[in-house]
Amino acid sequence: MSDHIRLYIPGPIEVSPKSFEAMCKPMIGHRSKDFQALYGGMQERLQTLFETKQPVFLSTSSAWGIMEGALRNLVAKKVLCCGNGAFSDKWVDVAQRCGKQAEGLMFEWGQPVDPETVREKLSTGEFDAMTLIHNETSTGVTSPLAEIAAVVREFEDVMLIVDTVSSFSAEPTPVDINGIDVMLTGSQKALALPPGLALFTVSDAAFARAETIKDRGYYFDFLEFKKNQEKDMTPSTPCIHTINGLNAKLDDIFNEGVENRYARHQRLNGLVADWVTNNGFEFFAPEGYRSIGLTCIKNNREIDVSRFNQLLIENHSLTINGGYGKIKGITFRVSNMGDETDESIAGVLAAMDDSLAKL
Amino acid sequence: MSDHIRLYIPGPIEVSPKSFEAMCKPMIGHRSKDFQALYGGMQERLQTLFETKQPVFLSTSSAWGIMEGALRNLVAKKVLCCGNGAFSDKWVDVAQRCGKQAEGLMFEWGQPVDPETVREKLSTGEFDAMTLIHNETSTGVTSPLAEIAAVVREFEDVMLIVDTVSSFSAEPTPVDINGIDVMLTGSQKALALPPGLALFTVSDAAFARAETIKDRGYYFDFLEFKKNQEKDMTPSTPCIHTINGLNAKLDDIFNEGVENRYARHQRLNGLVADWVTNNGFEFFAPEGYRSIGLTCIKNNREIDVSRFNQLLIENHSLTINGGYGKIKGITFRVSNMGDETDESIAGVLAAMDDSLAKL
Repeated sequence: MSDHIRLYIPGPIEVSPKSFEAMCKPMIGHRSKDFQALYGGMQERLQTLFETKQPVFLSTSSAWGIMEGALRNLVAKKVLCCGNGAFSDKWVDVAQRCGKQAEGLMFEWGQPVDPETVREKLSTGEFDAMTLIHNETSTGVTSPLAEIAAVVREFEDVMLIVDTVSSFSAEPTPVDINGIDVMLTGSQKALALPPGLALFTVSDAAFARAETIKDRGYYFDFLEFKKNQEKDMTPSTPCIHTINGLNAKLDDIFNEGVENRYARHQRLNGLVADWVTNNGFEFFAPEGYRSIGLTCIKNNREIDVSRFNQLLIENHSLTINGGYGKIKGITFRVSNMGDETDESIAGVLAAMDDSLAKL
Repeated sequence: MSDHIRLYIPGPIEVSPKSFEAMCKPMIGHRSKDFQALYGGMQERLQTLFETKQPVFLSTSSAWGIMEGALRNLVAKKVLCCGNGAFSDKWVDVAQRCGKQAEGLMFEWGQPVDPETVREKLSTGEFDAMTLIHNETSTGVTSPLAEIAAVVREFEDVMLIVDTVSSFSAEPTPVDINGIDVMLTGSQKALALPPGLALFTVSDAAFARAETIKDRGYYFDFLEFKKNQEKDMTPSTPCIHTINGLNAKLDDIFNEGVENRYARHQRLNGLVADWVTNNGFEFFAPEGYRSIGLTCIKNNREIDVSRFNQLLIENHSLTINGGYGKIKGITFRVSNMGDETDESIAGVLAAMDDSLAKL
């Protein structure tokens, strides 16, 4: 067993030697021209990835910080929190902890968020914001972003807050065309960087809303991010090393080609899907709503998932995830995000074959 | 001019190759036994450094996040914010942005916080919390922590929140003996790590206070940190790479010996102080209140600080700081924090001699 257990869990995932090398660049002052050049130099490529004309902000936090920040910046009346898994379900509780009126719109784990149900709820006129997790990492379910966003656009006062933590850069998540007010993601999923850096955009309507809202605080104040970004800076001391890693990762992404990257994720995801069906397993997500970056496998064969993963670790120095929260053991998850290749995914699947045979 | 401009600004500072190497360890899952072993394995050494029996928490944020968090967790009535420089002055504004009643107790930049004045203000009974920056990085002034803490202890209901961002691990900052309710620091000062990781402690009284306070949010909720720390975990996905760096840095610190480290910082600070007086400069801080980790030099010779620093960069591939905010150019600052040695500081001072002669 190697010291290095390769991660095929849905984040954090493997960080490449090249990314690590970039993170080892000497420190620079965060109020220096060097930092401005670093951050400013990434802006256009980040906007291309987010498909937006708005600036892309960097927050030294994990994505939950910006999830909370979005609530503090945008919710005056009441927020509707779409829940269909462990992470999206939690958002309503976080909103209430921020002193916000919040209501959950809950779907069964494994199901996507339904646009029609969203329309019904928003039609009550009770809400001025809605939260959605595009790809619910705990269940491997992707909700139909464009359809849901179209519904939310029918309600002018409702701010759409979208978490793309485990879909961003694995598949297109266009901001402007969907009219997304806040879109946020993290560094440790398909961007294949260590955790601790969140990326997000804010629409003009959302900035205008924020201006009317008190108690936004400082650390996650979107207007503070805007003011600083205009000088290619961040409100607080940023995680310079991780940002250096992001800069190098953007080089990788644009060298590969954004569309090629999406196609690769799709192709690798297909390899995992083939393994699932070839081995008599089923998907936890319904057809048409399966994540591109990870696969949540229904354990219909009732294998000992914990033992299965232990064999992968011991014999193959790699690990998958044995299911999250209340579907632990009932499901297991395999990531194909980040820098994985046809060869590396084939290797994982061969290891899974071997371990399945040894159960 | 080298690509690597060595930083003698008061943070971020130089990160050693050893620290970078530690940060390049393969990723691990943050809900794994490996992470629990990593975080749990640091706890005793962190407690030794903080001089506390309370757990030490790790926040994936810069220190301002926890500064804001302390306000959100502890202030019910009104907070007194001691201000004597750019960073401490800002705290009253941040408190108000968090929706808290706040009042500044302002001292002239360059002066320490005065315990007697603190007593007078707290005697009004208006306050249930107080913020103090132990070492105000913008002015290089250290306030008398033990004396101020003793005063605050006279007022049972007043929570003492202390920022030791630029003093922690450069000099003793004991938590328990001073009865500090929240003590916080960051990774990019004397710990000589990249930014993006904050460390903090919370007293039992502060936990009890937090339980009575709503709207604490989630990301910086101290009770959430406590609940997770009991399992050697963090509430949100942590910056694993930086935490690996911290672990290696703790090895360095305890190999050197904590007392030896403090003595080294004191000695190197003395070398800088000698340069100041030998060159006809003065200190911005009064005698007895000068920072151990950095020196804020009064530009009484009225040199062109910007040009001086430019010569250091161009001819010696190192940079100091040309003063912060309203005292830019009127002062300049040299750091001796982190891994610096007698030799490296002698090198900086020789470069400063050379650049001074060339002005």
